[in-house]
Amino acid sequence: MKTTFSTLHQKLTDIAQLKSAMAALNWDKDVFMPPKGSGPRAAMLSYLAGELHEKVVSKEFLDLLRESKAAADAGGLTHGESAIVREVWRDVSREEKLPVEFVKELAQVTSEAYLVWVDARQKKDFKIFAPYLTKIVAMKRREAELVGFAQSPYDALLDTFEPYATTAEIAAALGDLRNFLTPFLAKIKRSKVRVQRDAITGDFDIEKQKTFCAMVAKRIGYDFDAGRLDVSAHPFSTSFHPHDARITTRYNREEIIESISGVTHETGHALYEQGLPAEQFGTPLGEAVSLGIHESQSRMWENLVGRSRAFWTYFYPLLRNEFAPAFAEVSLETFYRAINAVEPSFIRVEADEVTYNLHVILRFEIERAMIEGEIDVEDLPRIWNAKMKESLGLDVPDDSLGVLQDVHWSFGGIGYFPTYSLGNLYSAQFFAAARRALPSLDDEMARGDFGGLLRWLRQNIHVHGKFYSAQELAKHATGEKLNSKYFSEYITKKYSEIYEL
Amino acid sequence: MKTTFSTLHQKLTDIAQLKSAMAALNWDKDVFMPPKGSGPRAAMLSYLAGELHEKVVSKEFLDLLRESKAAADAGGLTHGESAIVREVWRDVSREEKLPVEFVKELAQVTSEAYLVWVDARQKKDFKIFAPYLTKIVAMKRREAELVGFAQSPYDALLDTFEPYATTAEIAAALGDLRNFLTPFLAKIKRSKVRVQRDAITGDFDIEKQKTFCAMVAKRIGYDFDAGRLDVSAHPFSTSFHPHDARITTRYNREEIIESISGVTHETGHALYEQGLPAEQFGTPLGEAVSLGIHESQSRMWENLVGRSRAFWTYFYPLLRNEFAPAFAEVSLETFYRAINAVEPSFIRVEADEVTYNLHVILRFEIERAMIEGEIDVEDLPRIWNAKMKESLGLDVPDDSLGVLQDVHWSFGGIGYFPTYSLGNLYSAQFFAAARRALPSLDDEMARGDFGGLLRWLRQNIHVHGKFYSAQELAKHATGEKLNSKYFSEYITKKYSEIYEL
Repeated sequence: MKTTFSTLHQKLTDIAQLKSAMAALNWDKDVFMPPKGSGPRAAMLSYLAGELHEKVVSKEFLDLLRESKAAADAGGLTHGESAIVREVWRDVSREEKLPVEFVKELAQVTSEAYLVWVDARQKKDFKIFAPYLTKIVAMKRREAELVGFAQSPYDALLDTFEPYATTAEIAAALGDLRNFLTPFLAKIKRSKVRVQRDAITGDFDIEKQKTFCAMVAKRIGYDFDAGRLDVSAHPFSTSFHPHDARITTRYNREEIIESISGVTHETGHALYEQGLPAEQFGTPLGEAVSLGIHESQSRMWENLVGRSRAFWTYFYPLLRNEFAPAFAEVSLETFYRAINAVEPSFIRVEADEVTYNLHVILRFEIERAMIEGEIDVEDLPRIWNAKMKESLGLDVPDDSLGVLQDVHWSFGGIGYFPTYSLGNLYSAQFFAAARRALPSLDDEMARGDFGGLLRWLRQNIHVHGKFYSAQELAKHATGEKLNSKYFSEYITKKYSEIYEL
Repeated sequence: MKTTFSTLHQKLTDIAQLKSAMAALNWDKDVFMPPKGSGPRAAMLSYLAGELHEKVVSKEFLDLLRESKAAADAGGLTHGESAIVREVWRDVSREEKLPVEFVKELAQVTSEAYLVWVDARQKKDFKIFAPYLTKIVAMKRREAELVGFAQSPYDALLDTFEPYATTAEIAAALGDLRNFLTPFLAKIKRSKVRVQRDAITGDFDIEKQKTFCAMVAKRIGYDFDAGRLDVSAHPFSTSFHPHDARITTRYNREEIIESISGVTHETGHALYEQGLPAEQFGTPLGEAVSLGIHESQSRMWENLVGRSRAFWTYFYPLLRNEFAPAFAEVSLETFYRAINAVEPSFIRVEADEVTYNLHVILRFEIERAMIEGEIDVEDLPRIWNAKMKESLGLDVPDDSLGVLQDVHWSFGGIGYFPTYSLGNLYSAQFFAAARRALPSLDDEMARGDFGGLLRWLRQNIHVHGKFYSAQELAKHATGEKLNSKYFSEYITKKYSEIYEL
């Protein structure tokens, strides 16, 4: 006779099978599917999404969950089982508050809005998109009301991407970050040091880039027996199981670092997925904590590792050799500086480590104000452009380089952006803790040995799944809750040296 | 208010979405999945198979089917709708006769048996596999009893692969075929003409083979916007929808024709799938008639087209150019003969056009006798080897080159083999009809124009889906039911010329 919890566990595994199947079909869609397959694939995925929804809202599942919750509250489950019930309960409670009609309407509106956004961006005209965004903002405000919130309606939206985080603490952390970044960026601008990116532009054979990128991923710990590296329009990572977690990148013949940083970033995500406990497949203990923690892994491998002098001490001779004679005249130091050039620019995804978070803060401030009803959608281009001038000193030439550049709002992903900055903050905090535990980390990396760092991440982050919240995990792994000073210290040290501040 | 039939139609589409998703996940498994993904993927597919089964046996679905059947019987549906109900009814009626416990046990036994077969073949020892095959034969006899049959229990098994076909008519057709092939092969053996395969062996760059194979597939009509060509251990084709029907082949550096015939064969299958009516996706009118008709398409493009003089009149100069200087000294005629060399051999899948069907007939005779209880499994190696001596004059050196070479029996696929020969017979019959309709077919092919033939197949075969049975389709497309004389005539004409008989 199965216990209620073990039956719930089985249902969770079933649900996970469906989610993983959809992830694999989405991977195929983005990597290999022939063009005419897109209509049939959309229908297939829509059908599977419906099946998934039915499972989650089925009376059988909800009854099992309620009974398991009662068992957990009565102290009848293990800590791990209780954590599973806690997280599933959290998700389902939220879902239950949203009427089916509302969910369907939102899906319909955002599905249309995405296409309108593509069109508007192409035409560089926010006015085309504005009525749809107005509708989405109204619906997301309604969603916040339905879900409920303590202080700001933005709390209720943030929560789906960064569970347990609050608007107030995000605002505080990002406020600290801005207070550090703005004067620091001004110092860099005043520096007499000019860092050129010329060293990393040229003509780089794509096949050689592929070989090099695969070698980098493998060397930093990616298990190619449990994953693949392919090409897609935008780099991404996806996971169907810890034993099948895949990555993609894109290749640019004229620039060498785009493909490599795509790979280090996505490998960071995939190392997390490969490191989740396989025996917990389907339960929250087998899932990543939050988008912020996920991003901390990708940004750590992309930046704190992948743009470090130690990393390139090992890889630069290999790069030079692979692409000879391209880098014959370029020293390691020149290369290192080139890949770390700071330059305010319009597009977030192309931004350097120093300016990147200013892009995110701008978006957070705008979307929070939209959701709190303090600004109107029609005013967005004006507000956006004023903030770009203020924070980065740039005059935005058109909406495609400004308010229309990101897809997130079109799919209703309001509350998503702050997780990018949280990822950066957590990455520095985790890296500092790993460094304390591994005093010879730089030497190891310079020898091409990334095993110590990966083991630290496996033991302190990956293995826990969702057992801890992001804040608890930070405390558990680093001894303190989220603290932006580690990121500030990292940036200050690295860029003060590069720009001789 | 939806009618019963339109609700049934919706359910059929839902079921098809699940089947297509599984096909896509199986494709990934065989083409791109990393090795560690195999356990999780098996669990995912097993879960989806269970979901699929539940849908098909659900009371809701069966009620809709019964009501639609009543409507069809009362003349309340169109011809097309009635055909859909007829075919679904057929499948479901069979399923309903098999107790769930029986289906589960068979799945369990064959799943184990497959692994034992792999081991036995590797060890070249039939005795290892014999107890499992004995069990499978007993279960398939039981299945035939449960399903019911008119004359032979083999009828009931054949029916799942070749609907509406009977053992008696297959035995008659294959008997005719053997009566033609045996003396014809003897004539070839007595011929003083020696055809060498040397011309097609050498060292052929794999990338060039890939380019050439893709060009061939495209030229004969395969739509790469609705499919892909990849590499797998064994060539196969699969379809998720007429707009996404994919093929694979394998490449042999030392021989040029294996990859090309893999591609022409699988393209033949895929042209059928791409030619099925997309608006009938999910219904029998959007499905292939039978394995025999499917194989007629692959074998036509592989052999009647792809090993013809006309085909190579167009492609040989291109092959010569691509692989220069490899074929500098080889005339078209020498090449044509090399790819059509007749040579009795042990392995079915490597057999030429003349001996191939003798391999199939041997298997048909053995499996029919097993199912009719006339021979014991333990005697199989002796019987197999005696038949090989009798029909092909060969002494089988070990079981891996004999009775253990094919996977089919290990998965319970008894009744499958005859569809290979039916495919050959239908291919010649269809090709003869197409030739009557297209008097300049050879000239067209020699110019690289395969559009006339493909259009004929689209209009006469592909577009009908399962509206007709295989026999009806043959009659509709060629004016007569299955007749082995077209194949005999084709073989006689082609090989009498090559071997100067």
